[in-house]
Amino acid sequence: MARFLKNRSAAQGKSPGSLVFIGKQKTDAVSIRLIQYHEQFFEDIRVSSVKELRERRREGTVGWIDINGLHDTELIAQVGEAFDIHPLTLEDIVNTGQRPKAEEFEHYISIMIKMMRLEHKDGRIHSEQLSIIQGSDFLITFQEKPGDVFEPVRERLRSVKGRHRKSGTDYLAYTLLDTIVDNYMILIERLGEQIEAMEPQIIDSPGPELLNTINENRRELHFLRTSVRPGRDALRELSRLQTDLIGSSVSFFLRDLNDLATQAVEAMDTYREMLKDQLESHGASSANRLNETMKFLTVFSVVFIPLSLLAGIYGTNFTHMPELQFRYAYPIFWGVLIVVAGCMVWIFKRKKWL
Amino acid sequence: MARFLKNRSAAQGKSPGSLVFIGKQKTDAVSIRLIQYHEQFFEDIRVSSVKELRERRREGTVGWIDINGLHDTELIAQVGEAFDIHPLTLEDIVNTGQRPKAEEFEHYISIMIKMMRLEHKDGRIHSEQLSIIQGSDFLITFQEKPGDVFEPVRERLRSVKGRHRKSGTDYLAYTLLDTIVDNYMILIERLGEQIEAMEPQIIDSPGPELLNTINENRRELHFLRTSVRPGRDALRELSRLQTDLIGSSVSFFLRDLNDLATQAVEAMDTYREMLKDQLESHGASSANRLNETMKFLTVFSVVFIPLSLLAGIYGTNFTHMPELQFRYAYPIFWGVLIVVAGCMVWIFKRKKWL
Amino acid sequence: MARFLKNRSAAQGKSPGSLVFIGKQKTDAVSIRLIQYHEQFFEDIRVSSVKELRERRREGTVGWIDINGLHDTELIAQVGEAFDIHPLTLEDIVNTGQRPKAEEFEHYISIMIKMMRLEHKDGRIHSEQLSIIQGSDFLITFQEKPGDVFEPVRERLRSVKGRHRKSGTDYLAYTLLDTIVDNYMILIERLGEQIEAMEPQIIDSPGPELLNTINENRRELHFLRTSVRPGRDALRELSRLQTDLIGSSVSFFLRDLNDLATQAVEAMDTYREMLKDQLESHGASSANRLNETMKFLTVFSVVFIPLSLLAGIYGTNFTHMPELQFRYAYPIFWGVLIVVAGCMVWIFKRKKWL
Amino acid sequence: MARFLKNRSAAQGKSPGSLVFIGKQKTDAVSIRLIQYHEQFFEDIRVSSVKELRERRREGTVGWIDINGLHDTELIAQVGEAFDIHPLTLEDIVNTGQRPKAEEFEHYISIMIKMMRLEHKDGRIHSEQLSIIQGSDFLITFQEKPGDVFEPVRERLRSVKGRHRKSGTDYLAYTLLDTIVDNYMILIERLGEQIEAMEPQIIDSPGPELLNTINENRRELHFLRTSVRPGRDALRELSRLQTDLIGSSVSFFLRDLNDLATQAVEAMDTYREMLKDQLESHGASSANRLNETMKFLTVFSVVFIPLSLLAGIYGTNFTHMPELQFRYAYPIFWGVLIVVAGCMVWIFKRKKWL
Amino acid sequence: MARFLKNRSAAQGKSPGSLVFIGKQKTDAVSIRLIQYHEQFFEDIRVSSVKELRERRREGTVGWIDINGLHDTELIAQVGEAFDIHPLTLEDIVNTGQRPKAEEFEHYISIMIKMMRLEHKDGRIHSEQLSIIQGSDFLITFQEKPGDVFEPVRERLRSVKGRHRKSGTDYLAYTLLDTIVDNYMILIERLGEQIEAMEPQIIDSPGPELLNTINENRRELHFLRTSVRPGRDALRELSRLQTDLIGSSVSFFLRDLNDLATQAVEAMDTYREMLKDQLESHGASSANRLNETMKFLTVFSVVFIPLSLLAGIYGTNFTHMPELQFRYAYPIFWGVLIVVAGCMVWIFKRKKWL
Repeated sequence: MARFLKNRSAAQGKSPGSLVFIGKQKTDAVSIRLIQYHEQFFEDIRVSSVKELRERRREGTVGWIDINGLHDTELIAQVGEAFDIHPLTLEDIVNTGQRPKAEEFEHYISIMIKMMRLEHKDGRIHSEQLSIIQGSDFLITFQEKPGDVFEPVRERLRSVKGRHRKSGTDYLAYTLLDTIVDNYMILIERLGEQIEAMEPQIIDSPGPELLNTINENRRELHFLRTSVRPGRDALRELSRLQTDLIGSSVSFFLRDLNDLATQAVEAMDTYREMLKDQLESHGASSANRLNETMKFLTVFSVVFIPLSLLAGIYGTNFTHMPELQFRYAYPIFWGVLIVVAGCMVWIFKRKKWL
Repeated sequence: MARFLKNRSAAQGKSPGSLVFIGKQKTDAVSIRLIQYHEQFFEDIRVSSVKELRERRREGTVGWIDINGLHDTELIAQVGEAFDIHPLTLEDIVNTGQRPKAEEFEHYISIMIKMMRLEHKDGRIHSEQLSIIQGSDFLITFQEKPGDVFEPVRERLRSVKGRHRKSGTDYLAYTLLDTIVDNYMILIERLGEQIEAMEPQIIDSPGPELLNTINENRRELHFLRTSVRPGRDALRELSRLQTDLIGSSVSFFLRDLNDLATQAVEAMDTYREMLKDQLESHGASSANRLNETMKFLTVFSVVFIPLSLLAGIYGTNFTHMPELQFRYAYPIFWGVLIVVAGCMVWIFKRKKWL
Repeated sequence: MARFLKNRSAAQGKSPGSLVFIGKQKTDAVSIRLIQYHEQFFEDIRVSSVKELRERRREGTVGWIDINGLHDTELIAQVGEAFDIHPLTLEDIVNTGQRPKAEEFEHYISIMIKMMRLEHKDGRIHSEQLSIIQGSDFLITFQEKPGDVFEPVRERLRSVKGRHRKSGTDYLAYTLLDTIVDNYMILIERLGEQIEAMEPQIIDSPGPELLNTINENRRELHFLRTSVRPGRDALRELSRLQTDLIGSSVSFFLRDLNDLATQAVEAMDTYREMLKDQLESHGASSANRLNETMKFLTVFSVVFIPLSLLAGIYGTNFTHMPELQFRYAYPIFWGVLIVVAGCMVWIFKRKKWL
Repeated sequence: MARFLKNRSAAQGKSPGSLVFIGKQKTDAVSIRLIQYHEQFFEDIRVSSVKELRERRREGTVGWIDINGLHDTELIAQVGEAFDIHPLTLEDIVNTGQRPKAEEFEHYISIMIKMMRLEHKDGRIHSEQLSIIQGSDFLITFQEKPGDVFEPVRERLRSVKGRHRKSGTDYLAYTLLDTIVDNYMILIERLGEQIEAMEPQIIDSPGPELLNTINENRRELHFLRTSVRPGRDALRELSRLQTDLIGSSVSFFLRDLNDLATQAVEAMDTYREMLKDQLESHGASSANRLNETMKFLTVFSVVFIPLSLLAGIYGTNFTHMPELQFRYAYPIFWGVLIVVAGCMVWIFKRKKWL
Repeated sequence: MARFLKNRSAAQGKSPGSLVFIGKQKTDAVSIRLIQYHEQFFEDIRVSSVKELRERRREGTVGWIDINGLHDTELIAQVGEAFDIHPLTLEDIVNTGQRPKAEEFEHYISIMIKMMRLEHKDGRIHSEQLSIIQGSDFLITFQEKPGDVFEPVRERLRSVKGRHRKSGTDYLAYTLLDTIVDNYMILIERLGEQIEAMEPQIIDSPGPELLNTINENRRELHFLRTSVRPGRDALRELSRLQTDLIGSSVSFFLRDLNDLATQAVEAMDTYREMLKDQLESHGASSANRLNETMKFLTVFSVVFIPLSLLAGIYGTNFTHMPELQFRYAYPIFWGVLIVVAGCMVWIFKRKKWL
C-alpha cells in the first residue's frame, strides 16, 4: 500500500459528509479516557460509552476527552452529537488522510495534525493523525491507536505545581501541539545526526551500502516533510484565527510555536540539500574511483602488451632467425624487455599517470 | 498527435467566437440525458433534440442535462440559445483543449475541468473535458464521449434518503466536482503505489526495464499534473466567486474540496521528487555496478598478464637459454607463476580491491 | 550574430530618444498598406507616402495602416508626426529588440509583441517584432518585413458577415493579437509533437543523433519562451489598462486571450521539463548500455585469459616437461580448457552476469 | 552530535516556559561584566552576582551587562527577575538552538542572533548564540562562552572621541549587530577566496583531494547560511519594529545594516552556485579524462592485438608451414608487423583518435 | 583576492560611519573635472581642489562634477562637507563593495551602481563602482579610476543641438544610467554571441578546451549577474522615489530604462540556462563517445581473443598432436581463424554493435 497517501478508494461513491474510516483498523476496541481538572481537582478515568462520559463529566472543570481508535464510526457519531460537532469535522476526523489544518467553528476550533513516531521495530517513522476539538471547557483528542507522546503532559497535569492546572483548554491545546512539534524537531535531529555522520565516508568509501543509506534518509526526510510542512501551515492558520477560544497569553505562546515549526521546516530543507549534495559527491567520488581503476588497468596493459609481443615474435618458428643463435641473445632479450618496460613507466611518470 | 496539447490548427483562421470542435470525434451520435428531481420526484430520461428537452423539462425541479459528444456544433448552438449561454462559453465548451477555469456570467456559472480516467486497454491515463453550466434550476454537463465517473451520484439521486434530493444545483455541481477530484486522488494513489513499490529494486537491480518504468511513471505523472494543477486553480476561483448561485453551506463544502485538491497537487509534487530521486539513485547505482565490473576486469587482467608474459618468454626459441635445461626448471616455473599470482592477489587484498 | 538578442551596439552613443534601426534591413522598400472599412464599406489600397496616406484616409471609417519595413527611419518619423506618436514609442518601434509590452498614451495604446514563424528553409523558428498603435479610429501595425499571419483577418474583413466589420479598432487589435497567440500555440504544438514522438526512442536507441534532436528542440523551445513569456506579460498589462480605447466586450475577449497565453506558457514549461527528463533518461540509458558493453567485454576476457595462459605454459620450451610426453596429454589439455571455460561461464551465470 | 541542530531532547517533557539549557556546557563559571558610560564617564568592572550588579549599577549611565555562560539557569532567572524579562525570552536565551529573531516587549527589545567564528584549531566555522536585551538605559548580552568579536567596540567606548559615548543603548545594540554582520561578511569573503582560488585546478587536475575541498566548502557555506539567512530576517524584523527604544538616526543605520546583510546572503547564494558549477565542471572534466584514458587504452590494444596474433600464428608447430622455410621470411614477417601497425595508426589518425 | 567580493577586512574594527577606502588604489592622484552648462553655455575644466571647485562653480548652470579616484578620503570628506552630503552616503561612496542602491536624502538622491567594462588585456569583465549624487543644480559622480563610458554623453553636451543642454540634472543622471545599462546589454550580447557560437561544437567535438570555454563563460556571466541584478533593483527603487528632484518626463524615461534593465536580467537568465544545457549536452555527448570507444575496444578484443587462443593451442609442444602432421593442417588452421573471425563479426553486425 502507498505509504505516502491514505487509501481513498474505500470512500469513493459515498455521499460527501458520510463517515467512512480510511486506513487500517489499528486498535481493537475504541477506548475513551477522561481527564478532568481545575486548580484544586484532578481526575483521570476511563469510560466505556458516550452516555457514561456525559454522566461523569463535572461542571466547572476542564475536561480532556482522549479517544483512541477511529474505526467505530458509530461511537464517533455519538461523540459528535453529544458535543455538537459539524458533520464535515467528523468526516475529517475519521478520514485520517486529511491535510493538516485548523478551522474555527461556532463553538469550537478543530485542529488536524500528524503525530510522528519512530517505530523501533522497523526503524522507520510512522505517522498518525491527531484531531483536536477545542471547546470552551472541553478538549477532545482523536487518535488512530493507543500510545502517544503526551504522557509528560498528563504528568504535569497531575502535579499541582506549574501553570498547567490553572489554565484553560487553550493552554492544554497549546501544550499538546508543542509536544508534537518538539517531537518533530527530535526526529529531524536524529535524522540529521545520521546524515551528518555519513559525510566523511562519502569521499573515502563510496559504495552500494552508503547509497542505500542515503536513499533511506531521503525517503524518511520526504515522509517527514509531507507531514511537517502542512503542519506548520496549520499552526499558522491557528495563530491567525480571530477567536475568543484562545486567550492572548496563549496566542503569544502559539507565535513562539510557529517559530519552532518554521525552524523545523528550514532544518528539513537544509538536510534535504545536504542529502542532495551527498548524492552528487558520491557520484563524483565514484567517477574518480572509476578513473583510478581505468588508469591502473591502462598503464598495466600498456606496459605489458609490447613485452608480450616481443616474446611472441621470438617464439615464432621461422627457420632463419639469426638472432636466435647469438650467444648472448637471451640475456639481451631480457635486457630489451626491461628497457622497454622502464621507458614506458618513465613516460607514464612524466605524463603524471603514475 | 501531441497527447499533451489539443490540436488547435483546425480552429486557425476562424473568427474568434465561432464554434469549431477541436479533438477527435469520440462518439457517433450526440446523446442528451435529462435527470429531473425534487424531494418527492425523480425522473431519468433520454431526449433526442433540444425541442424535446424543452417540452419534457418540468417546472420546480432541479434539472441535470447531460450531453455526450461535442462534434455536433449545431446542437450545441441550439442548447446555447435555449439556455441563453454566452458565445464565448460555447466556444470554450467545444474547444476541448481549454485550460480548466470557473467563470461567473449573468445567470449561470461555467466550470471547465478535466475528467481523468485510467483506460485499461493501454494502461494509460486519458483525459476528457467536462464543462458544467450551473444555472439556478438547471445544470448542464458537456462530455466528449459517453461513460463517466458519475454513476454513484445518479444512484444517490435515485434514493430518497440523504441530503442530495433536498438540495439545489449548487450541491449537485459540488458533488460532481467532488467525484472528479476524488478520482484524481485515486489515480495519484495508484501511481504512487507503483512508484513506492519500485524503491527496493532501484539499488538492487538497476537496468533498462526499470528505467522504462520510471520513465513511464514520470510521463503519466506529468500528464496528470497538466490537468490537476489548473483544476485546483479553477476550484479556487470557483470558491472565490461572489454569487447567489452558490449557497453558503455549499461554499463551505467547496472550501473543503479546495483542501483536497491542494493535497492532490502536493502529493503529485512529492511523487515527482521521488521519481527524480529514483532516477538519480538509479544512475548512482548503475555507476557503482560499472565500478564493480571494471574493478573485476582490472584485477583479473592484471593478475594474468604477467603470467602470460612469463609463459611467452620461455616459449621463445633462443638457442642459449640455460634455464630450459635445468632439471627442475619446469616445476620452478609453475612455482614462480603461483607466487607472482599470489603476490598480486595479496597486493589487491591490501588495497581493498578484492 | 546572437540570435537571442538584437545587436544594440549600433545604437550606442546616440542620445536616448533618437531613431536608430536595430537589426538587419529585412526588406528593400518600405510598403504602406491602408485598409479602411465600416459596416457598408471596404477598401484595401497601397500608398507610397505619408502624404498620400493622409489624402486617402476617409473620415468615419476604421483605418488599418500596415507598414512593412523599419529601416526607413525618416518615413517612420513622418508617420509618428502625422499620428502624433510619442518619440519613445517611435524609438521602441524601430528598436526591434524591444521587450514585449503594452503602454497607454494620451490618445493611443502601443503594443509591442513578437510574431513567430517557422521558416521552412532552415526548419527554425524566426521572430519578428510587431508594433501596434491603436487609436480611436486608426490602427497602425509596424512589421520588420513583408509577409505575416494576418491574411485570414483581412479575409474576414472583406466579407460583410460576422462581427468584424461592425466593430472598432479595439476588436481589430484583439483579432491581430489573437492570431499571434494562436500561432504561438500552433508552434508549441508542433514542437510538442516532435518531443513526444521521441519518447520511445530514448530508452531503446540512445545516440548522438537523438542527442542532437533533443538539443535542437531545447534551443527552439528556449527561443520560443524568450518571446512568448514576455508576450503573455504584455497581454496581461494590456487587459489591466484602464482606458476608453478598449470597450467592455473586447475586455472580455482579452481576458480569454490571457488565459490562452497562460496556457501557452504552461505548455512550454511542461515540454521544457519533458526535454529535461528526456536528456536525463538518455544519460541513464547510455550508462546502461556502457554497463552492458563492459560486462560483455569483462566476461569474454575473463573466460579466455586463463585459457591463453594454459596454452602459453604448454608452449614453453623447457626440456623436462613430463606432461608433454603423455599419450593423451593433448586431448586432456583440450578437456581442461573446456572445463575451465565451462566453470567460468557457470560462475558468471550464478552471479547473474550472463 | 548534529552540528546543524542543537539537541532538543534534553528539554523534552518539560513544561513550556521552564529554563533548560540546551547545548554543551561551554564555560566553567558564569562571568558577569558590567560596562557603564556616559559622555564623561566610563567604567569596566566584573561582578560576581546579580546582587552586586544591582549595587554597582549607576543611575544616568548606559549600562552594558555582558553575561558569559548560560548553564547556570539559576543566575539567568535572577537576571530575568532583576530586569523584569518575560519567561519566554529567558527560555529563548538558554535554548541556544533558537532561530534568530527580534521581538518587542513592553520595556525592552530582545534580539537573538548567531555569532560566527573561524576556529583555528580545526579550520571550521563555529556558531554561538548571542542574545541581546535592549532596554532604555541597559543592554544585556548573553553569550555561550567567553571570547567574542566585540573588543573593538569596547575600545571605541573607552576613548572619549567619536559618536559612541554620546549615544544610547540603541546605538550600542546597532554597533554590536554591525560587528556581527561585518564578521559574517569577512567569513564569506574568506570562503569565497578559497572557492575562487580553486577554479583553475578544476579543469586541469580533477581528483579526490579537490573533491574533498569542494565538499568542505559546501558544508561550511551551508553552515554559514543556516545562521546568516535567518539573521538577515531578524534584522529586517528589528528595523520594522515601531518602538520608542530605537531612535530615528539609529533606524537609518539599521536600514544600512539590512542592506549589508542582504548583500551577505546574495554573496552566499553566488558562491553556492559557483560551488555547484564547480562540482559539475569537476564531473565533466573527470569524464573527459576517463575518455582520454579509454581512448589511449583502446588505441594501444587495437594496434598490438593483431601483431600478437600474427606472432602467435607463426609460433604454431604445424609440420607443413611453407612460409617458415623461406629465406627472407623472418624479415618479411617484421615488415608485415610494421606495416600492419602503421596502417592501424594511420586509420586512427584519420579518425582523429590520435 | 576574491573577485566577487571586495575586501572588507580593512574596515573592520572601525566605527561605523568612518571613511575607509576598500579596494586597491586604482589611480595615483584624484582628479576633479567640472562640466558646467546651460542652453547657451558650456564649460569643461579640471580643478585641483574643493576650494577651486567652489570658486569656479557658476550660478544658474547645471554642474557635473566628476571625481576619479577614491583613496584620498580627505578630499572625499571635503566634497561631502561642501555639498552637505550625509556621512553614511560618503561611507557608501568609498566602500566600493557596496550593493547597488538608490536612496533619497533631504536635498539630493544618491545612486550607487556598477560600471562594467571588458578589459582587452585579460579578456575579462571588470567592475567599478559609480556613485551618483544628484542635487537640484549639481551632479557629482565618483569613479574608482579614470576612464569611463561617458564620452558620448560629454560629446552630446558639447553640441548645442538636442534635448540635453536644455534639461536639468535629472536628465543628466538618466543619460548616465542609460549609458551604463546600454553597456550591460552590449556585454551580455557579446557573451551571448560566444555562447550561441559554441552550440554546434558541443555535440560534434566535446573536450577539455570546450569545457574550459563553457566554464569561463559561466564565470563571466556569474560576475555580470552579481552587478546587473542588484543594479536593476536600484533602478526600480529610483523610479519609485517620490521626489521633486526627478521631473515627470524623466520619470517616464526611467520607466523605459527599467524595462531595458529587466530585459538584461532576463537575457542573462536565458544564457545561464543555455550554458547549463550546454554543460549537460557536453556530458551526454562525452558519455556517447565513451560508449563508442568502449564498443570498439570490445568488438576488437572479442574478435581477436579466440583467434589468439587457437594460435596458442597449436603452439603447445605436446608430443602427440595429430593435427600438426596433417598435410593441409596449416591452411585449414588459417581457414578456421577466418571463419571464427567472420562469425564474430556477423554476430556483432546482427546485434547492431557494428
